[in-house]
Amino acid sequence: MDIAILGSGNVAYHYATALHMLGHNIDQIFSKTSANASALADVVSAQAISALADLNPQLDLYIIAVKDDAIADVVADLDANLRGIVVHTSGATPITVLDKFSNYGVLYPPQSLNKELAIDYSTVHFAVEGNSEEVEYLLLKLMLTLSPTSFRCTSAQRLALHVAAVFANNFPNMLYRLAKSIVEKENLDFSLLKPLILETAEKVQNIDPNQVQTGPAQRNDEVTIHRHLDFLSYSNDLAEIYQTLTNIIIKSKGKRGNN
Amino acid sequence: MDIAILGSGNVAYHYATALHMLGHNIDQIFSKTSANASALADVVSAQAISALADLNPQLDLYIIAVKDDAIADVVADLDANLRGIVVHTSGATPITVLDKFSNYGVLYPPQSLNKELAIDYSTVHFAVEGNSEEVEYLLLKLMLTLSPTSFRCTSAQRLALHVAAVFANNFPNMLYRLAKSIVEKENLDFSLLKPLILETAEKVQNIDPNQVQTGPAQRNDEVTIHRHLDFLSYSNDLAEIYQTLTNIIIKSKGKRGNN
Repeated sequence: MDIAILGSGNVAYHYATALHMLGHNIDQIFSKTSANASALADVVSAQAISALADLNPQLDLYIIAVKDDAIADVVADLDANLRGIVVHTSGATPITVLDKFSNYGVLYPPQSLNKELAIDYSTVHFAVEGNSEEVEYLLLKLMLTLSPTSFRCTSAQRLALHVAAVFANNFPNMLYRLAKSIVEKENLDFSLLKPLILETAEKVQNIDPNQVQTGPAQRNDEVTIHRHLDFLSYSNDLAEIYQTLTNIIIKSKGKRGNN
Repeated sequence: MDIAILGSGNVAYHYATALHMLGHNIDQIFSKTSANASALADVVSAQAISALADLNPQLDLYIIAVKDDAIADVVADLDANLRGIVVHTSGATPITVLDKFSNYGVLYPPQSLNKELAIDYSTVHFAVEGNSEEVEYLLLKLMLTLSPTSFRCTSAQRLALHVAAVFANNFPNMLYRLAKSIVEKENLDFSLLKPLILETAEKVQNIDPNQVQTGPAQRNDEVTIHRHLDFLSYSNDLAEIYQTLTNIIIKSKGKRGNN
């Protein structure tokens, strides 16, 4: 396929290099900042462009991989008559933002793609959406060459996946930060908690997380909960988060999968 | 050392088998339920007892490894003149619950110990506390043979570690459960999120979690946050947790280690 990548950040980098390695022709890299366009273009033997007017309208695929809030601006500047399929890579942006084109879709990886971190694409579950059966089939076929676990999804499924990713990634990371602040308050090192963090994430790779809930809330251990809240009384934020998550654990007891 | 283990659950099992393997004599296993005492006693060639009156008062170490809320009852039934050191293994229980004995302490593993899961003890950071320098030294020396990362801690440090473990383990697991419920609502499989969960936990093994916060809250991406809250409007609990954790991420921006 002849492909243009619109963007030069982390996601753009991964799509450009991964598809280049699969033998596709990355024809152009667009970035408003021409140095950024050139840097990525050099890696994948593409032409760097910094104006959308220079975009080749005859390519097979245009991948918009810019920040969510910049997608609409890029779309507004694009010719509606581009020959190929136009896709974005955002989890939360409606597919309809692209409806001025004839053929469009979404390629959403529910995983964080970082330039500095190599990734085994075969483990990434790319969620693929198209505005027609034909487009969806073509996009899925492409993504399956990158990862055998790529799958077709609806807009509602993609949004669910994006929301769930916040609960599975962004929020746990925030909790790790709070845990770090708590031990550091008593001059202990965060590394003490690292085995526990890893163990918790590894456990749910094979066991339903509903089956492995532990802790004072799950045990209805009011004495310990009280001691914890006493300890956390130095921070209203910490106490509030502790109380909110303790409440939901208690409330979830007895529901499906719990004891 | 000649040791008695008081309890027959997960924690008791691990202390009994680990210390037995190191060559110590597990003299007695106590459990009110004699079948439980016998089951564990058989594994470590100990005598099973189901009445504390039968406890050998001449041992070097008594490890109380029962549920937190049962510690006080066990202590009440113990002879104050036991020859050896009496310890409990609880993160949140004050050391003073043992102050009727001459020599006492705490051996707290900030990790979940489960009978069914083998564990590499050398990765467990056992927190060791004693009522005197001498007791603390003896306990630390023992635990260092089990794990080189065992360390002396104060009661305040142990409590901090216990609270932080809730933030690093119990709460992330609850978030995984919520993430699972969110994708399942749209008929997607939880396995789609597993790589992301693991990646998030692996990342903070080497990088400060304050440096790797991502997501709509970190980006101040109000459009996405609004879309997520719209999606979550079917559950007040989910919306509340989303809002609470989003608020703390936004509030933490610009603080030490963030950008």
